[in-house]
Amino acid sequence: MRMVNGIDWNRALAPRASKMRASEIRELLKLLDQPGIISFAGGIPDPNLFPYEVIRAAFVDLLSDREKAAQPLQYSTSEGYPPLRRWIASHMATLGVPCEIDNIVVTSGSQQALDFLGKLFLGANHTALVMAPTYLGALQAFNPYEPRYDRLDDAPNGTPAWAYRTRAEAAGGRVAMAYVVPDFANPTGETLDIEARQRLLKLASELDIPLIEDGAYQELRYEGVPLPSCLSLDVRRSEHIDRTRTVYCGTFSKTVAPGLRIGWICAARELVQKIVLTKQGADLHSATLNQMVMARVGELGYAAQVSKVADAYAKRRDAMLDALDRHMPPGMSWTKPQGGMFIWATLPPEIDGAALLAEALRSEGVAFVPGAAFFFDGSGRNTIRLNFSLQSEPVMDEGLRRLGALIRRQPGVGATRIHGRKTMK
Amino acid sequence: MRMVNGIDWNRALAPRASKMRASEIRELLKLLDQPGIISFAGGIPDPNLFPYEVIRAAFVDLLSDREKAAQPLQYSTSEGYPPLRRWIASHMATLGVPCEIDNIVVTSGSQQALDFLGKLFLGANHTALVMAPTYLGALQAFNPYEPRYDRLDDAPNGTPAWAYRTRAEAAGGRVAMAYVVPDFANPTGETLDIEARQRLLKLASELDIPLIEDGAYQELRYEGVPLPSCLSLDVRRSEHIDRTRTVYCGTFSKTVAPGLRIGWICAARELVQKIVLTKQGADLHSATLNQMVMARVGELGYAAQVSKVADAYAKRRDAMLDALDRHMPPGMSWTKPQGGMFIWATLPPEIDGAALLAEALRSEGVAFVPGAAFFFDGSGRNTIRLNFSLQSEPVMDEGLRRLGALIRRQPGVGATRIHGRKTMK
Repeated sequence: MRMVNGIDWNRALAPRASKMRASEIRELLKLLDQPGIISFAGGIPDPNLFPYEVIRAAFVDLLSDREKAAQPLQYSTSEGYPPLRRWIASHMATLGVPCEIDNIVVTSGSQQALDFLGKLFLGANHTALVMAPTYLGALQAFNPYEPRYDRLDDAPNGTPAWAYRTRAEAAGGRVAMAYVVPDFANPTGETLDIEARQRLLKLASELDIPLIEDGAYQELRYEGVPLPSCLSLDVRRSEHIDRTRTVYCGTFSKTVAPGLRIGWICAARELVQKIVLTKQGADLHSATLNQMVMARVGELGYAAQVSKVADAYAKRRDAMLDALDRHMPPGMSWTKPQGGMFIWATLPPEIDGAALLAEALRSEGVAFVPGAAFFFDGSGRNTIRLNFSLQSEPVMDEGLRRLGALIRRQPGVGATRIHGRKTMK
Repeated sequence: MRMVNGIDWNRALAPRASKMRASEIRELLKLLDQPGIISFAGGIPDPNLFPYEVIRAAFVDLLSDREKAAQPLQYSTSEGYPPLRRWIASHMATLGVPCEIDNIVVTSGSQQALDFLGKLFLGANHTALVMAPTYLGALQAFNPYEPRYDRLDDAPNGTPAWAYRTRAEAAGGRVAMAYVVPDFANPTGETLDIEARQRLLKLASELDIPLIEDGAYQELRYEGVPLPSCLSLDVRRSEHIDRTRTVYCGTFSKTVAPGLRIGWICAARELVQKIVLTKQGADLHSATLNQMVMARVGELGYAAQVSKVADAYAKRRDAMLDALDRHMPPGMSWTKPQGGMFIWATLPPEIDGAALLAEALRSEGVAFVPGAAFFFDGSGRNTIRLNFSLQSEPVMDEGLRRLGALIRRQPGVGATRIHGRKTMK
């Protein structure tokens, strides 16, 4: 920001503000309004799958007369609408986490949950353990609290607790939390096996830190057997949710509709009480009406809604994998996710994902997210994230055909390998 | 929080978490569900005044078919829904603040605006200047950023800039911002005259800090001439909003309906861009549907809605002032606000507001907020805040009759002064 006549905003800002940077994903969302762009960016659900009839009926009913409408339009408590919290508690039980209403706090999407957990756990220079790559939105939620990041290693015989601790202390802090998306991770689409989950719990226990589990995609599994969440493993080991250290973040954004902004945290009651205070100071409460609508959606066939979404996205994942096989040049590889919304592709090493995006937008009308955005350490320059939830199969095929052709045209790739670089540039 | 088997949450939390304390107001809100309680707590609008028909029609129309419903239920940009931002910009112009859409960012109520501004401006040990008393929710929004507070003095020839600066530096930081509710303040109901506003702007300028202006009640004026906001005075002086240092926080919670959680910030474009990044990390965006509904409410007769609310609350303010005259014992005083939702009462010095509340709830079924909650420095023990927006006039009269009788029964008050303390206790 430049100096202006009245106030130099850069000087007025607290040091943490320098950690807040523009998100390429969110900036790209603005491009979606342009006609003709084929976007594989964003984690945008297909609006055709929104449970429109149930949502509409719930809104219409809740606003059906003035007296009835008083509650949904009025202030409500920071914890969230009790019937919704009750439904979420029973839903968590179906996911292997027996819990009570007091273990649940409603948030404005799981993004808000990440902001609150950063606020509660991260002091300046304290270390957050995250995968590399990890969810960009988590880094954006945590950055304002000025943490240092260290790479969370889920491999057997991976980095031991003492090594994390030593590095954190050398950086003038302590290890404060670990964050993970165990199922069909954003951005890689990869899933941690049960042994890796147990290892993370053991590590969190050795470091005596909370384990933040982002379950945004957990229910969108298209093949294979559902794995227990870290929280459910923790409950089994601890024998009660109020003795667990795992903090589960859930959302209705991927399974129902993101525009309503309803998510939740499920955790030990003592922590939930602190989160409620955080929410009180941050925005008082999430929209009352939206919570009441979501409670209805929960009660009226949530499982069927999830099945509908999973069936549709399974077909799109298959279609994207097929299209990648058809259109991508040799020298590329990509993940085969068992669920979620994303495929993670590794480009030939000489291609920069951000430069490719600029060219893809300009000459092909195709968008995706350059992978480097998901690394706290600036690595991953030759990776990209492709979303398969939004586009229809023919559009997806066309977009990937264009993208594949563009990649083939890059210096040193595919056909150019045969003809040599000289002829290309 | 006590030590539990798995994790000691107190040890796991960042230092800032110790600054987050339960709000008496929000805890009290839970009591409102109990039948028979007459509550003067909370800043709760009367739901009978919600523009129910317009809101309902907007929801029904936006959800009238599946294709139309795609946008309101989908993700949207962090800045907010453009037609709503445009309406807010034109609304700010009617309040003497010519501005563009890029000067507006939509927030989830003005509470979220205060959280964001705390996040952006307050470093640990930096000084926030606030009135004493001030809005409790502002203290709750700011506390997690670990500021030190100093008392903002609006008196002519009050505390000079150098004195604030010296104290802030002695505390190991700098003065980082000033926060004020200029119109019908929460909690006192008092309004700053134009000279006081000019003095605050001059002070902010001398200290080279942003002035946060909380305009939550600005439009609810029941008598007297509307005063220019600090932002409008700043625009006049700076000749353009992009050169101002005032950050205006607005909300639809008091004039339309709080349950939708829609507020806004109006400020210099450069700062707005930083706030948008803050919002991106904090909750991505406010509920799309709710913003679209609010844009309709804005377009369809907002001025008439504000008039309706102001007319109703003006009568209640008069009724509360009359009831206070009728029922309160000698030795008490209270403010006569020209607008807003609150009257601030000073009890006889020997009465503690918090102890009185406990007794009022137990024996009289009457609630209010003890004034000490609004002071960062723990003063104001013999003050209480009374809300006049929620209760009908007969209920208000009955509640204040009971409260007055209870105060008279306190040792050393009213009739007891005549009989002497000895006979009472």
